[in-house]
Amino acid sequence: MGVRESIKRVDAYDKVTGAAKYTADLLPTGALVAKVVRSKIANGRVLRFDLDAAKAVKGVMAIFTCFDVPDIEFATAGHPYVLEKEKGDVYDRKLLNERVRVYGDDIAVVVAVDEVAAARAARLVKAEYEEYAPILSVADALLPDATPLHPSVRPTNLLTHSSYRVGQGTYEEAKTSEPDLVEFEAEYSTQAVQHCHLEPPQSYAYMEGDRITVVSSTQIPHIVRRVCGQALGLPWAKIRIIKPYIGGGFGNKQDVLYEPLNAFLTWKLGGKLVKLEITREETMACTRVRHAIHAKVKALARKDGTLIARKIEAYSDQGGYASHGHSICANTVTLFKQIYHDHLVTEGDGYTVYTNHATGGAMRGYGIPQADFFVESMLEDFARKLGVDPMAMRLANCLPVGYVDPGTGISAYSNGMRECVAKGRALFDWDEKRKRYENQTGDTRRGVGMALFNYKTGVYPISLETANCRMFMNEDGSVSLQMGATEIGQGADTVFTQMAAESVGVSEANVHIVSTQDTDVAPFDLGAYASRQTYVSGMAVKRAGELLRDKVLDFAAFRLKKPAAELDIRADHVVRKSNGNPYVSLADLAVDAQYNRERAERFFAEASIDCHENTISTGVTFAEVEVDIPLGKVTILNILNVHDSGVLINPKLAEGQVHGGMSMGIGYALFEELLYDEKGRPLNDNLLDYKLPTAMDQPDLHAAFVELEDPTGPYGNKALGEPPAISPAPAIRNAVLQATGVAVDSLPLSPQKLVEYFVKAGLIKEVAQHV
Amino acid sequence: MGVRESIKRVDAYDKVTGAAKYTADLLPTGALVAKVVRSKIANGRVLRFDLDAAKAVKGVMAIFTCFDVPDIEFATAGHPYVLEKEKGDVYDRKLLNERVRVYGDDIAVVVAVDEVAAARAARLVKAEYEEYAPILSVADALLPDATPLHPSVRPTNLLTHSSYRVGQGTYEEAKTSEPDLVEFEAEYSTQAVQHCHLEPPQSYAYMEGDRITVVSSTQIPHIVRRVCGQALGLPWAKIRIIKPYIGGGFGNKQDVLYEPLNAFLTWKLGGKLVKLEITREETMACTRVRHAIHAKVKALARKDGTLIARKIEAYSDQGGYASHGHSICANTVTLFKQIYHDHLVTEGDGYTVYTNHATGGAMRGYGIPQADFFVESMLEDFARKLGVDPMAMRLANCLPVGYVDPGTGISAYSNGMRECVAKGRALFDWDEKRKRYENQTGDTRRGVGMALFNYKTGVYPISLETANCRMFMNEDGSVSLQMGATEIGQGADTVFTQMAAESVGVSEANVHIVSTQDTDVAPFDLGAYASRQTYVSGMAVKRAGELLRDKVLDFAAFRLKKPAAELDIRADHVVRKSNGNPYVSLADLAVDAQYNRERAERFFAEASIDCHENTISTGVTFAEVEVDIPLGKVTILNILNVHDSGVLINPKLAEGQVHGGMSMGIGYALFEELLYDEKGRPLNDNLLDYKLPTAMDQPDLHAAFVELEDPTGPYGNKALGEPPAISPAPAIRNAVLQATGVAVDSLPLSPQKLVEYFVKAGLIKEVAQHV
Repeated sequence: MGVRESIKRVDAYDKVTGAAKYTADLLPTGALVAKVVRSKIANGRVLRFDLDAAKAVKGVMAIFTCFDVPDIEFATAGHPYVLEKEKGDVYDRKLLNERVRVYGDDIAVVVAVDEVAAARAARLVKAEYEEYAPILSVADALLPDATPLHPSVRPTNLLTHSSYRVGQGTYEEAKTSEPDLVEFEAEYSTQAVQHCHLEPPQSYAYMEGDRITVVSSTQIPHIVRRVCGQALGLPWAKIRIIKPYIGGGFGNKQDVLYEPLNAFLTWKLGGKLVKLEITREETMACTRVRHAIHAKVKALARKDGTLIARKIEAYSDQGGYASHGHSICANTVTLFKQIYHDHLVTEGDGYTVYTNHATGGAMRGYGIPQADFFVESMLEDFARKLGVDPMAMRLANCLPVGYVDPGTGISAYSNGMRECVAKGRALFDWDEKRKRYENQTGDTRRGVGMALFNYKTGVYPISLETANCRMFMNEDGSVSLQMGATEIGQGADTVFTQMAAESVGVSEANVHIVSTQDTDVAPFDLGAYASRQTYVSGMAVKRAGELLRDKVLDFAAFRLKKPAAELDIRADHVVRKSNGNPYVSLADLAVDAQYNRERAERFFAEASIDCHENTISTGVTFAEVEVDIPLGKVTILNILNVHDSGVLINPKLAEGQVHGGMSMGIGYALFEELLYDEKGRPLNDNLLDYKLPTAMDQPDLHAAFVELEDPTGPYGNKALGEPPAISPAPAIRNAVLQATGVAVDSLPLSPQKLVEYFVKAGLIKEVAQHV
Repeated sequence: MGVRESIKRVDAYDKVTGAAKYTADLLPTGALVAKVVRSKIANGRVLRFDLDAAKAVKGVMAIFTCFDVPDIEFATAGHPYVLEKEKGDVYDRKLLNERVRVYGDDIAVVVAVDEVAAARAARLVKAEYEEYAPILSVADALLPDATPLHPSVRPTNLLTHSSYRVGQGTYEEAKTSEPDLVEFEAEYSTQAVQHCHLEPPQSYAYMEGDRITVVSSTQIPHIVRRVCGQALGLPWAKIRIIKPYIGGGFGNKQDVLYEPLNAFLTWKLGGKLVKLEITREETMACTRVRHAIHAKVKALARKDGTLIARKIEAYSDQGGYASHGHSICANTVTLFKQIYHDHLVTEGDGYTVYTNHATGGAMRGYGIPQADFFVESMLEDFARKLGVDPMAMRLANCLPVGYVDPGTGISAYSNGMRECVAKGRALFDWDEKRKRYENQTGDTRRGVGMALFNYKTGVYPISLETANCRMFMNEDGSVSLQMGATEIGQGADTVFTQMAAESVGVSEANVHIVSTQDTDVAPFDLGAYASRQTYVSGMAVKRAGELLRDKVLDFAAFRLKKPAAELDIRADHVVRKSNGNPYVSLADLAVDAQYNRERAERFFAEASIDCHENTISTGVTFAEVEVDIPLGKVTILNILNVHDSGVLINPKLAEGQVHGGMSMGIGYALFEELLYDEKGRPLNDNLLDYKLPTAMDQPDLHAAFVELEDPTGPYGNKALGEPPAISPAPAIRNAVLQATGVAVDSLPLSPQKLVEYFVKAGLIKEVAQHV
């Protein structure tokens, strides 16, 4: 009972039987159906529409174009609102865009009585464009004569450049700070990938009075409410968002995607019920992707591997709209700084640049998987250059215990990085394998690689961290638990249930969590992102539970005629604190309290947290691969993630969380990449052509933990949601390096790419005409 | 802004445009459909079923009979739970009943894929019965050899007998207490009528995990939850009730009708979505009705009309099941006592008796319309016998200011009965009309009549009065208001909105009330009945508003660097208390509070009320009629209700409330009556044969108010919901008496009945063969 127990997920039964209600399951009958009309160019401007054919389709109720929407630009990122607007997100898009920046941009929308009519009419909408040359690389975007994509927001396509200089002097000066320093220099690249959550974005909207309700598959209902209000120019509370169970989000649903448009449609159609469902193809091409980032890195070290100085320049491909914008690239350069300690200086520069690719947004890891690929590839390559053991070089330089980020003040209150390495090293049989694979030959070779990572917990102090929790006790002694924080498949409802059980003193079976967030009744919370919820929202659960417990004990004291201080709640009973002997069950006490003629009382509590803390999670991936050199095929023989996420609220769920993240990391390492033609048209915006690893492609996944109690976490816990996705890719890349001696500098390690690199390295003598 | 203002109903627009969502509007697609199979006898026992033909119907998913349901008897009355079970409601029915007590009793239920299959199969279910003679009168039910309908609950058909004796000695002794006393003795009867709410009972149910959700058209979601738990033998919080807008209830939905059966169906069908809709015919015959009560009254008075002693014996026809049971008859005999002051003694005896009629339950007025017909007919008839002016006799004896009920301690903290009479007398031109109509002759005659009433506010101290309210402030400065109390068409949402606006200091447009009660998130409340909500739940609104205001002012003090005591909230602004000058709008303050980096705060408040007060509302009806004697037709020329309900929160809504109640009272007076054949089969269980007055049958309705501020009401207010339905019937009856000299002793005053009485009185000389 309580935390540190592997109870079964509270939503397990419903989710495996299909009883769980998702947005589409809740849709009332008679909804109109909306279909977005998308641009057939990547860069340009809509001049005019011919809607005659579309309007003639039977069942079409309305067509709205980019010329019909409010002249309001809004920001879609799922961030807390910022009082100083200039410090917040970039307001750079309308509900529908006349100025087209992405192939498939939202230029119009058809509403019809059914799917068939809507789709047919959407196809018949004819748009005439002024077309510009598509900008399909950061380099092109930054050319002096490049068309600025958002002239009202930025004069050029550079969305933001940020930089830091930590330490004494400059990187250039560090070169001569002592003799015999070795320099390393390289460039690494990561690709754009898509979240590929099971359930594409969908929503439906209707009105009651002058208020708009949107039921939507989102991670961030309270933020969606605000952005809908902003996009429509309405007071925010005129919007109500309801979030049912969602089929994954991974950050894509930490963006306000189509809820404002759906709200607009019901608003314009007299409150009629309108459904807006986005297809898989639209999701992949027109929602958000993980930013492709290119990094130029340099490092100086002593011959023994001691890092003296490092420098990174990261160029992030933002795509057509700002979305989460520079936050992600800023995270990338920050991780570069944090994960290793440079004795003299670290320099970081991040550039986020608009292009005509799909818009980059939040995705599990939020810039850190990219950074980790850069920094852990670099470390490996540098160690190789120096001839030192890369693990030893890592351990000698990695995140010190007690680390405090000089920019943000974020502290590693706990830091199990070294413990993770030690545990993984033993479990993985690292030393033996590393040695065994030292000198591989032949067409099929094996190798092992590793990569460290660290990750912060929530967004304080960069941004706001607030959470609320409400509880009340029912007449049967059970506790109803209401969160603003969201279950998005990660198990949040289960860990909150455990925390509530722990803080009140009841069994999990007696906690009923409200999984649906309805902004009209849910306590305020920012939502599921930044691996924040067990930490920040968990604090609210703990606090509310304590308040509820106090109220129960106060009534118990009245009924039992004993001082409240001598009472406690354990195992669904009010007990004598000193020896745990039960006085009365909560079931008996609660019904008595509710219907007591002398003092009838409903036990309820609500807690508000304004969290001014953060802490750092750490971990490591160990990977063992076999590379079929002629085929360019990597097979993962063994892969292990070891995490320090503080105390685990639910070890089994934590393991599942790690497995999921590792799987995502493997896809990132080996398979996934969004591709475009020369017009900026997506080439593989579907799950047939885009290689998302399936269960058939995954090795057995191994997870282990180092449970250092974090002093700031409500139960000693800290971030776990995103970390597992970070370090698999560089670990696999480094294993391929050990196996083949080939240092691949970009993701993914696809067969096409590997064969090319192996040919270049002379490992494949003759190449068949395979391309 | 605030109370005492006739703002527009907050749900007006949605309700007139059809945007408002009722249960049926929310039903997701794909629901199974349930249909209740009803007994074809009124009294007996089901021996066995033949289900072969029914099961063969395509689309039938399941059939459950009375032999398949849990062996649990439960009580359906919408009362607070009582800790001492023996003092609470009577547990006398199962989900489906093998022992049949009503024609159309629930004996089985069919679940099918659609309406057609369900209805077809329900018709094909064959039941074999052991049939007993139907018991169709209270007298028959009390015969020594009458079959006891509920032998497990009561040995005879007498459900309860209660009595009181107030004053000195007995009624019999009072006869000789002084010389020259005049005695009056009579018997009066009221009929069974049905609520005829627009929306028949309907619900749908499904499961999530091991918990059952029932979405239902009910007045009392929290009580429905408890009763469903009891009926299924589940912990109460395993049930979740959601109450959308409802199309009226008038007390019928203060009973737990079919929600437990619907919960049972989804429970047995693996959580599948099942809809259960009750037809109009089923509603009229098989849900609840207003109790038909027969009263024997006696009274002693001096020749000047001073009442010395009175006595009532009331016999209430309970029908087949206990439902609200004796509470209603007890209310009847209590009103008889309260409304007039007897100088020596008042005796009351109430008998509630099971029969095979439709079950009597709660209906607007809850026994008081019956009592008022008895007492105000008696007063009129007695005054006539004494030759005194009936108004003067009323005023000389009626409810004294400062009255305290000797049994319950309920006090008339305010009492505008005399003010109501004075105001109505003038408005109605009573004296002139009374005089004008003194000696009518001819076939068409006119007359005026009046009737007083009084009514308590809520149920304390007879039962529990608790209410809770939750509020929070949104980022736009608006207030979300969450009640457990229910909007059932009476305007509750509007008056709560006004109270919240008043207590916080915002405009009504900035209050967003959550109209739907979902027991998983709603604050606890007992629901809409006993005219309690503006009084008891209103106290919770006021308290929560004050708590919220304090939180806002505390933050404002922090931001403005001024003492909170110098600040106030008025018209959506924080102002300087002393002069009302605005400092900052709530919109600006709330968004600042929500996103303040130093002290981010969500303003919320929840208040719990355990009300230990009650007070008495009063009023009077004046009616002017024209009677077509040969046709037995009464036309209401003018009718006026004058009410003392304390301060009116919303005068316009109050007027609407009075109009609705008067309309119901007119139907009760002239048109409505449920009829049965000799087998107990309903003869007019539909709106074609049962005469519910339509707009065409209604005169203009006039309402006036005497707004005495009640010291216990949250805003000086007290009961108004039920009172308007009470006194029209006796006032009309008394007007017919003045017009014709005929004292009709039962309701309704239908043409058939009047002609019969007029013949008896010699007003109609020759009667055509009209029957």
